[in-house]
Amino acid sequence: MSVRRVIDLLRSGEPKQAATVQGWVRTKRELKNFSFLEINDGSSLQGLQVVLDQKLPDYADLLRSLTTGASVSVSGVLVASQGNKQRIELHAETLQVWGESDSETYPLQKKRHSFEFLRTIAHLRSRTNTLGSVFRVRNTCSQAIHQFFQERDFLWVHTPIITGSDCEGAGEQLAVTHFNPQQIPLTEAGDVDYGQDFFGKPTYLTVSGQLEAEAMALAFSNVYTFGPTFRAENSNTSRHLAEFWMVEPEMAFCDLQGDMDLAEAFLKHIFKTVLDHCAEDMEFFNLRIDQSVLETAEQIVNQEFERISYGDAIATLTKANHPFEYPVEWGLDLQSEHERYLCEELFKKPVIVTDYPKEIKAFYMRLNDDGKTVAAMDVLVPKLGEIIGGAQREERLDVLEQRILAQGLSLEDYWWYLDLRRYGTVPHAGFGLGFERLVQFMTGMANIRDVIPFPRTPLNAEF
Amino acid sequence: MSVRRVIDLLRSGEPKQAATVQGWVRTKRELKNFSFLEINDGSSLQGLQVVLDQKLPDYADLLRSLTTGASVSVSGVLVASQGNKQRIELHAETLQVWGESDSETYPLQKKRHSFEFLRTIAHLRSRTNTLGSVFRVRNTCSQAIHQFFQERDFLWVHTPIITGSDCEGAGEQLAVTHFNPQQIPLTEAGDVDYGQDFFGKPTYLTVSGQLEAEAMALAFSNVYTFGPTFRAENSNTSRHLAEFWMVEPEMAFCDLQGDMDLAEAFLKHIFKTVLDHCAEDMEFFNLRIDQSVLETAEQIVNQEFERISYGDAIATLTKANHPFEYPVEWGLDLQSEHERYLCEELFKKPVIVTDYPKEIKAFYMRLNDDGKTVAAMDVLVPKLGEIIGGAQREERLDVLEQRILAQGLSLEDYWWYLDLRRYGTVPHAGFGLGFERLVQFMTGMANIRDVIPFPRTPLNAEF
Repeated sequence: MSVRRVIDLLRSGEPKQAATVQGWVRTKRELKNFSFLEINDGSSLQGLQVVLDQKLPDYADLLRSLTTGASVSVSGVLVASQGNKQRIELHAETLQVWGESDSETYPLQKKRHSFEFLRTIAHLRSRTNTLGSVFRVRNTCSQAIHQFFQERDFLWVHTPIITGSDCEGAGEQLAVTHFNPQQIPLTEAGDVDYGQDFFGKPTYLTVSGQLEAEAMALAFSNVYTFGPTFRAENSNTSRHLAEFWMVEPEMAFCDLQGDMDLAEAFLKHIFKTVLDHCAEDMEFFNLRIDQSVLETAEQIVNQEFERISYGDAIATLTKANHPFEYPVEWGLDLQSEHERYLCEELFKKPVIVTDYPKEIKAFYMRLNDDGKTVAAMDVLVPKLGEIIGGAQREERLDVLEQRILAQGLSLEDYWWYLDLRRYGTVPHAGFGLGFERLVQFMTGMANIRDVIPFPRTPLNAEF
Repeated sequence: MSVRRVIDLLRSGEPKQAATVQGWVRTKRELKNFSFLEINDGSSLQGLQVVLDQKLPDYADLLRSLTTGASVSVSGVLVASQGNKQRIELHAETLQVWGESDSETYPLQKKRHSFEFLRTIAHLRSRTNTLGSVFRVRNTCSQAIHQFFQERDFLWVHTPIITGSDCEGAGEQLAVTHFNPQQIPLTEAGDVDYGQDFFGKPTYLTVSGQLEAEAMALAFSNVYTFGPTFRAENSNTSRHLAEFWMVEPEMAFCDLQGDMDLAEAFLKHIFKTVLDHCAEDMEFFNLRIDQSVLETAEQIVNQEFERISYGDAIATLTKANHPFEYPVEWGLDLQSEHERYLCEELFKKPVIVTDYPKEIKAFYMRLNDDGKTVAAMDVLVPKLGEIIGGAQREERLDVLEQRILAQGLSLEDYWWYLDLRRYGTVPHAGFGLGFERLVQFMTGMANIRDVIPFPRTPLNAEF
């Protein structure tokens, strides 16, 4: 008895082969002398059609237990399918029901369910067509990311999740503590005595592994992170999660040009891999979720990204005969409507905007010679806007110190980050990609909570 | 100017080729008419020897700035090396110093440093031979893990880091909160009003993704997690971290046999991949860190693991003429000394112990027909003891409910986990591997803090 995955049988099963499949019943159709089951094992969107002849022992009992959601092992012989929905089907000779699924209470009946409802049964929703496709695409994306970097000799580095620095300023970060909230120890001065907490100081969940990744890049040349990051933003939107995965490559001896080249090659590689490996799932999204998904993916793969400076982008937007809600003015950040106009209306393809005013970007981005802009770059894509944010990092010790102080931060907090500029500093660059934003964009899913298995958002940490 | 990695030049650079390398100076040796630099870019343990002729412009100035830790780009021509330490060397024609490294203050001078000291400069320690090798091996391990599972059609699933259930009982878990510790809101009854916290209830950092992985396995058949997990144990030992990465595969339609087979194939694959891809680093560990490292790795790859039941192991240990510190008795857990005796003295190879008494194992492990033991398995290896712990899961709703209640846990807290047994339950199994324990075991490093870039332990969350 050789067990085979459904996808394998659908692709390469041949008539007259013996086969066993194991999976869950999606649908059952009873005819006069036989019945059809659709068995899904999660390996593909389409299930395998199984034919049950009424001559099977205990046929009537079997049929009763074969409700939607029941788990089975079926052995039999493959036969060319009569219908045109599938190439092959399995004629059952023996069938074992492992676990039944009470049709009175099983929440996933045949009717369509709203994604809101499915979130309340996140432990079962992966058994639906849409979520099944989402998580297969998510897996393929994640492997495409590793493959892209490993082929280029980047090391995957695991930067810390718990961090001692509240680097984005108070409030944005979730705290990690071992204190009993009803017995917070205080110092004599009445302050919280963090010396008694688990790590001996206030600690938070990281918002980015970039600074630590820079330290690793200055030893290994090319590294990337791929791990969870956190934001305590109280944003109940379709695009925010409190816990999400981030990808952050960092390259020594690399400038903004190299950074842009890498980001473009990276996106092209991921989209191409998913189009190649998840064709069925992507077609499903295009049909059922968002009819521009395939076109967008093809565009990312095949079109050279436009590159434009922030200054030129502002000039272009100012001249555009388009009613924007937010003002367009040098020094103000681009809003989503501006980003989308550039991609969707003006260039009709992905756009990389570079060299933003230093005031609207982070302190670690390299100051350009004009003294006003920094070597930042944002990759903008249609429908979404910014999908990647990156920069060449400030590698000059004196300039970096000035930028830290100018932002009201303390040099002491960045002692080790400054050390990287003190000892063997080099031009280096990197970027960050929010993994769930990528999967959301790729699949066309309306809510980001539906592209991560168990979403964490304000007032929600179920499962 | 084509930049090449040092490892590439060492392996396949040919005399007379033009080449550029970029990296950091490890050593400098000044002779009468020329000097030698060793340049390392993190791609390999060995650096590239660069020869600087005194006829180079500004030779004296250059030499002064080329101290240990300085960063450079060097272009020139490859020449067969005279010495026998390396095959090839680079004769410099142009050299650019990017960043100097003050030899008075740079903490990584040529002398040996203790690993304790290096931990205080974790942002720089990857530039040493040992830590460089550790993180290259770590990367190769992590890719071997993904490769192993992806080739077998397992999906990588991202289970939540923040969890609403304190599933290991109070105290072991770190809490996640957005409360101001000086203004914890209380209910009228005087309890903490968690409804006002970010997630609306008490939340913790996960200790395992297993339960959520089970939910995913019951949709996709085969899945694995590879992500950070956390323990608040106040253990200041060489084997404990508060933050570490864990690998947890979970397979539907799988029993304990299949679980053991997978675990054995998994370890063999990882060790083989590292021996193949990181030969130089592994030889370094064998020479400098632990002289049994290569032998142990070969043993894992080449020897079939012994399999023995807990009952037989107890009987064998009882008969052994060996002075154990801890008692050997049916019902007591195996201690490290027992595990090591089985591997090192008795079988002289890895051992899988199965079917432990239910009292010493978790509630979710499948109860055997004897009513006394569960279908658990631990993989034990020489020197370390347990490296993998796994089990077939209890798939029977009634038995699982009894086991939950018997451990004083509440059925309500496990409503969704029980649902997995209510709807289409199947035999399933999985295991967990502590990733840092694996890397520590593989490299022979004495302290687990030296196999993760930025370790988190009690009273320590630097960087």
